Amino acid sequence: MTDKLEPTFEGDFTFADAAPFALDSGATLSPVTLRYAWYGAMMPARDNVILICHALSGSARVGDWWPDLLGAGKPFDPARHCILGINVIGSCYGSTGPTSLNPATGLRYGGDFPVVSIRDMVRAQAVLLDHLGIARLHAVVGGSIGGMQALAWAVDFPERVPHAIAIGAAPLNAMGLALSHLQRQAIRGDPAWRGGHYAQGQQPVVGLALARAIATITYKSDRLFRERYGRRPNRAGEDPTRDHAHRFDVAGYLDHQGQVFVDRFDANSYLVLSRAQDTFELGRNPDEEAKILSRAKAKMTLIGIAHDWLFPPEEVRGLAERFQAARVAAEYAEIVTNHGHDGFLAHPELLAPLVIRALE
Amino acid sequence: MTDKLEPTFEGDFTFADAAPFALDSGATLSPVTLRYAWYGAMMPARDNVILICHALSGSARVGDWWPDLLGAGKPFDPARHCILGINVIGSCYGSTGPTSLNPATGLRYGGDFPVVSIRDMVRAQAVLLDHLGIARLHAVVGGSIGGMQALAWAVDFPERVPHAIAIGAAPLNAMGLALSHLQRQAIRGDPAWRGGHYAQGQQPVVGLALARAIATITYKSDRLFRERYGRRPNRAGEDPTRDHAHRFDVAGYLDHQGQVFVDRFDANSYLVLSRAQDTFELGRNPDEEAKILSRAKAKMTLIGIAHDWLFPPEEVRGLAERFQAARVAAEYAEIVTNHGHDGFLAHPELLAPLVIRALE
Repeated sequence: MTDKLEPTFEGDFTFADAAPFALDSGATLSPVTLRYAWYGAMMPARDNVILICHALSGSARVGDWWPDLLGAGKPFDPARHCILGINVIGSCYGSTGPTSLNPATGLRYGGDFPVVSIRDMVRAQAVLLDHLGIARLHAVVGGSIGGMQALAWAVDFPERVPHAIAIGAAPLNAMGLALSHLQRQAIRGDPAWRGGHYAQGQQPVVGLALARAIATITYKSDRLFRERYGRRPNRAGEDPTRDHAHRFDVAGYLDHQGQVFVDRFDANSYLVLSRAQDTFELGRNPDEEAKILSRAKAKMTLIGIAHDWLFPPEEVRGLAERFQAARVAAEYAEIVTNHGHDGFLAHPELLAPLVIRALE
Repeated sequence: MTDKLEPTFEGDFTFADAAPFALDSGATLSPVTLRYAWYGAMMPARDNVILICHALSGSARVGDWWPDLLGAGKPFDPARHCILGINVIGSCYGSTGPTSLNPATGLRYGGDFPVVSIRDMVRAQAVLLDHLGIARLHAVVGGSIGGMQALAWAVDFPERVPHAIAIGAAPLNAMGLALSHLQRQAIRGDPAWRGGHYAQGQQPVVGLALARAIATITYKSDRLFRERYGRRPNRAGEDPTRDHAHRFDVAGYLDHQGQVFVDRFDANSYLVLSRAQDTFELGRNPDEEAKILSRAKAKMTLIGIAHDWLFPPEEVRGLAERFQAARVAAEYAEIVTNHGHDGFLAHPELLAPLVIRALE
């Protein structure tokens, strides 16, 4: 375990006070606050910034969730680059989201927070870059929903992105959409959810824990589960053949993942970010997608993760090939692990050389 | 769609009034009622009976859930064989289960119904066969949990089983156990579940519907979902990019599957049968399993289903190979479909020739 680096700077930026920020859903937000953090120093020319986009449960504090990739001598080295993280709209880690006050009511947005797209998140990040005087990034990098942001950056702001690295990211297929929906249903089905208008400290913990447990199986592979848990009874001495309340080991693990999550995440934020993941695509049909992909000017690196059944590597590879067909310089690489989707967090040693190569 | 055949006979058999029926869990049941039904005529020698074991949501009325396999000129032809179905212990379709009255309290068992194993179910079925004078079956056949029963019949009553056909059945791996657990958590997390002691007509419909929706993804394959639903919005004219309550098409399908299920199934029965599925194995370790498998004297036919990720075909094949290694006449066959686990219900035309061949 690596020590977590503290940000060099961490702060908030608020905009859209006067003119509201328009979302793809047709709704607007006003104002919009973005929590951001950076590690290292920005060069006077502001040309040494690597933007790291976080996944569903991440934050602007990249060092907290990618500690093995950030630091001296690592792929994201604050001595060489300024490593910037921006909390996405909709999250509960400092940016405007369902736990923020809705100026229209004076209450928390809760269930009234609008549908937000990945491209909305990126467009808001671009406003922050303008504010910071960053005309052009050195690179944008992310995994999962963070990878979707990297892809959106490359096609929506091609002049600002010379390198984009998207790991375990592609438009979700129908099984992925199904799994996301089940998670949201778990939250919405909990009576404590109250249509999203629960009081602070009274969120639907049962539904949110179940949602996280469902998500956890999508982040791991059946191979990993087989190796780690097999058919063993839960380590607490339970016997699933005798008592309905007793569990197998894998069930004890899932319950634990759910329980620890509810203390650190907001159920409505979960609904918003999960929906943003689902609606992400780069065109509604192949023709439109080809046109949009062709806008990218970055050196694109798409990284698939073996045994990732949420974002199957062959779909990530397929997207890389469609970038190539659109005459974009795109490369495909793969992390070979039994882990599944979470491999981008669990196997920094496999990811690091690919990132270093992509940034060259 | 084939017309559903009506049973020739349908009735109840009650035993264990005096001496309680001992379960593998250590608990007992007294009395035990089994609902059963047959199609066709039993020969005086009682040697023409094919026992068809049902899956989680099935019943003794085989014609209701396997209409394309049962009938004149079909693999299970009542003119040639007597086709017998027996509702399993724990179900809510006529046999003793959580909705039955607990003689100890005068109330429904509800959450007090004990853990039941697949082998308990089969041992109770054997008592009914004794009662009916059936010393030896012609064959025992089943898919999913029904396949587990066919396997248990072959090893626990080898003298009574000359042919056994088990489709899409093997001990669940860790991912399967995880998926089962999530379904049970959905039920147990619904406040209406009340520890299993809900009143009739007041079952936890939200939790049970979610459990069924989770189960539905395990019965289908990602390929099938991709072909059928893709990333299309729900057909009711919803737009998931605009409104949190709007869904993708696959989500509308899952919700529908959940909603129709709660009208026909009991949540506590679901917990009991899901648990029976999870705890099924034929030995706690390879040595014990080899010993148990070697007891079978049947011609065993194990049928895997392509793209079944609940009971992966390679695991069904592995079990067939372990039968062979234990010097049991076991064959492996595979249904090639994109459907996934439900293929044994959705593709009778693929299954029929395999069944006919196995029964020769």
